[in-house]
Amino acid sequence: MVPFPDDDTIACSRRVAGLKSSAIREILRVVNRDDVISFAGGLPAPDLFPVELLRTAAAQLLSGPAAPQALQYGETEGVSALRERIAARAPFPPGRLSASQVLVTQGSQQGLDLIAKLLIDPGDEVLVETPAYLGALQPFRFFGARLTFLPCDAEGVLPDALAKALRRRPKLVYLTPTFQNPSGLCYPESRRAEVRAVLADADTLVVEDDPYREIWFDEAPPAPLSAGLDLKRAVYMGSFSKIATPGLRIGFLVGSPAMVRRCVLAKQATDLHTNTLGQHLVLSLLGLSSFAEHIVAIRAAYRARRDALDAALTQRAADRLVWHRPGGGMFLWAKLAGGGDAAHLLEVALAEGLAFVPGGEFHAEGEGRDTLRLNFTHCAPPRLAEGVARLERALRRWKA
Amino acid sequence: MVPFPDDDTIACSRRVAGLKSSAIREILRVVNRDDVISFAGGLPAPDLFPVELLRTAAAQLLSGPAAPQALQYGETEGVSALRERIAARAPFPPGRLSASQVLVTQGSQQGLDLIAKLLIDPGDEVLVETPAYLGALQPFRFFGARLTFLPCDAEGVLPDALAKALRRRPKLVYLTPTFQNPSGLCYPESRRAEVRAVLADADTLVVEDDPYREIWFDEAPPAPLSAGLDLKRAVYMGSFSKIATPGLRIGFLVGSPAMVRRCVLAKQATDLHTNTLGQHLVLSLLGLSSFAEHIVAIRAAYRARRDALDAALTQRAADRLVWHRPGGGMFLWAKLAGGGDAAHLLEVALAEGLAFVPGGEFHAEGEGRDTLRLNFTHCAPPRLAEGVARLERALRRWKA
Repeated sequence: MVPFPDDDTIACSRRVAGLKSSAIREILRVVNRDDVISFAGGLPAPDLFPVELLRTAAAQLLSGPAAPQALQYGETEGVSALRERIAARAPFPPGRLSASQVLVTQGSQQGLDLIAKLLIDPGDEVLVETPAYLGALQPFRFFGARLTFLPCDAEGVLPDALAKALRRRPKLVYLTPTFQNPSGLCYPESRRAEVRAVLADADTLVVEDDPYREIWFDEAPPAPLSAGLDLKRAVYMGSFSKIATPGLRIGFLVGSPAMVRRCVLAKQATDLHTNTLGQHLVLSLLGLSSFAEHIVAIRAAYRARRDALDAALTQRAADRLVWHRPGGGMFLWAKLAGGGDAAHLLEVALAEGLAFVPGGEFHAEGEGRDTLRLNFTHCAPPRLAEGVARLERALRRWKA
Repeated sequence: MVPFPDDDTIACSRRVAGLKSSAIREILRVVNRDDVISFAGGLPAPDLFPVELLRTAAAQLLSGPAAPQALQYGETEGVSALRERIAARAPFPPGRLSASQVLVTQGSQQGLDLIAKLLIDPGDEVLVETPAYLGALQPFRFFGARLTFLPCDAEGVLPDALAKALRRRPKLVYLTPTFQNPSGLCYPESRRAEVRAVLADADTLVVEDDPYREIWFDEAPPAPLSAGLDLKRAVYMGSFSKIATPGLRIGFLVGSPAMVRRCVLAKQATDLHTNTLGQHLVLSLLGLSSFAEHIVAIRAAYRARRDALDAALTQRAADRLVWHRPGGGMFLWAKLAGGGDAAHLLEVALAEGLAFVPGGEFHAEGEGRDTLRLNFTHCAPPRLAEGVARLERALRRWKA
């Protein structure tokens, strides 16, 4: 970790004083060379973006009578037709959601920021999985949360550990049960049922983050945890970044009407509303059968990439790495078979021309150093294979 | 004021507990009927949006090789070509700014949120003008600022009062010297020089908000305060919402490289980055000579609207209202000549089919009740005249 940039001219708030910038991010930020293959980012493949669909949608929108409205200030809640479409499309029992339970956010990241802002006082306990999504830890820490990393096995968070932690009445529990970033883990239905039973008995707000649901390769994932919980105590978040494009920054949050209203007031002070052009473009896409076909096509393309990475690792690194083949999402999560520090391995790998993210930062301080996250959606299969060849060389040099 | 929406299920953070929703906003939110003429919003005229320029720009962008990149995740700092363009175009001495001093924000509102988040601890003093922009008061209050409203005359904040308040070393001073929302006031060069001299002697960060600079009617405004200050202690914010379109949500913040870097880290946890499609579209517009012509055309159109409102008020309400004709921006600020509560006048006006914003909320609690803000950019001249006819009837009924 490196200190948060400060100078002696203007003092930061106490909320910021203890924050650190990520040393790993600082390293990876400067590694943007063409000769480095990156498994480090969390980027979808730009060559698979629905550019033609968006070009047509933009041309129609900006030629039609709705053009001025799609460019004007909009309601903080989001474009109402999009909210309705999201309520109808979200993976909840038919008729369960209404538009008043939907807030359109500037990517699902903003939902995390709004929830943290609204709920977390300094010192409040927040439960997260081990490992946990780094982008959630940031806003939770920013507002002073005390994070507790709950133990997980190959099926998700351990229900007993969750139940025990909930007895302390923490402020919220943040879960990503479906193809998690970084672990790729997807809770099976049986574990979801156990976790739901534990959550239903508690007073704690559940924040379920679900951006990868539609990126599945082998079978569709079970229903979200939230679909079986009282929305008075659950917030569900989703995104169009992985199935449409991330640059539009369109995500959403589902919660009780009271929680949505609170988030609206916080969002008003934050950015007034989510960009309306992006909202209208996503709304257009959602009405096209060709967009449904596009989602099927990116599943197939990412499945091939997952298989390519898995096959290359099996061929070249099976003795040095341990991993589960992820059933969806964008990441393969691996462990160093003989232990060691993946941050050091990264230094060697960079010299070989490969970048990845060491897993330590997804854990409580000092833990998980023997883990690494490999993205497989951004590189085409030949480049994935070449990347693993470099990883093999790095593993050999590192242990030599 | 109405209480912040809460329920007994999930408790909000202490930061939220004291917040109120605006009663006036709640009233105006429901007044969205076709038979009501609204001078209440802060909306630019949708019929003057550069729709054709944007349609062409979008078609070119989404047909060209840069399309995938314009739809991909982007750097938190913003698209680098846009940052360079903003650095070159901002109203600072040539060569003074570099791209490293520019952060692209999700509308200039986000700049206010980031600054508040980074700097304000509960109880910190923040200086603002009387009246002040409501959208800034919201994030300042959200993070617990103690607001001090400084006295202003027709030329801006009073230098002596500012100097005296700065001796208490407040956390920051927020100023909108150019066609302010709500007052329309533009500090003349002489006052800017006096205020700059006071600010240069202080340790306090100056946050200058300048979204209306290019919407001038009679003569171009003097250079920003920040252009004559050390950027180690000044942050300058601007927006493309008024000259391009607000729905793209593209604004920017200028500050020291250290301050920009801090804002980048806070923004990363907030929404990762500003929507890239909107950034690329604004970048395209800024390269067109026809966009420069568009800005000249909206100046002329808004000048005609300002003149229409001013003329109608002179004809129908000169005995009951006092106002200065604004030299730019989007609002005419008026005072009830005989005193009284503009919130009550609003009730009568709504019955006549006219909405406006009573000025109380732009002031310290309980003050400024005899003021009102009239937007003139959203309605064409005939509708402005009809709105003033309704205002005249309301003023007569109200005082009858």
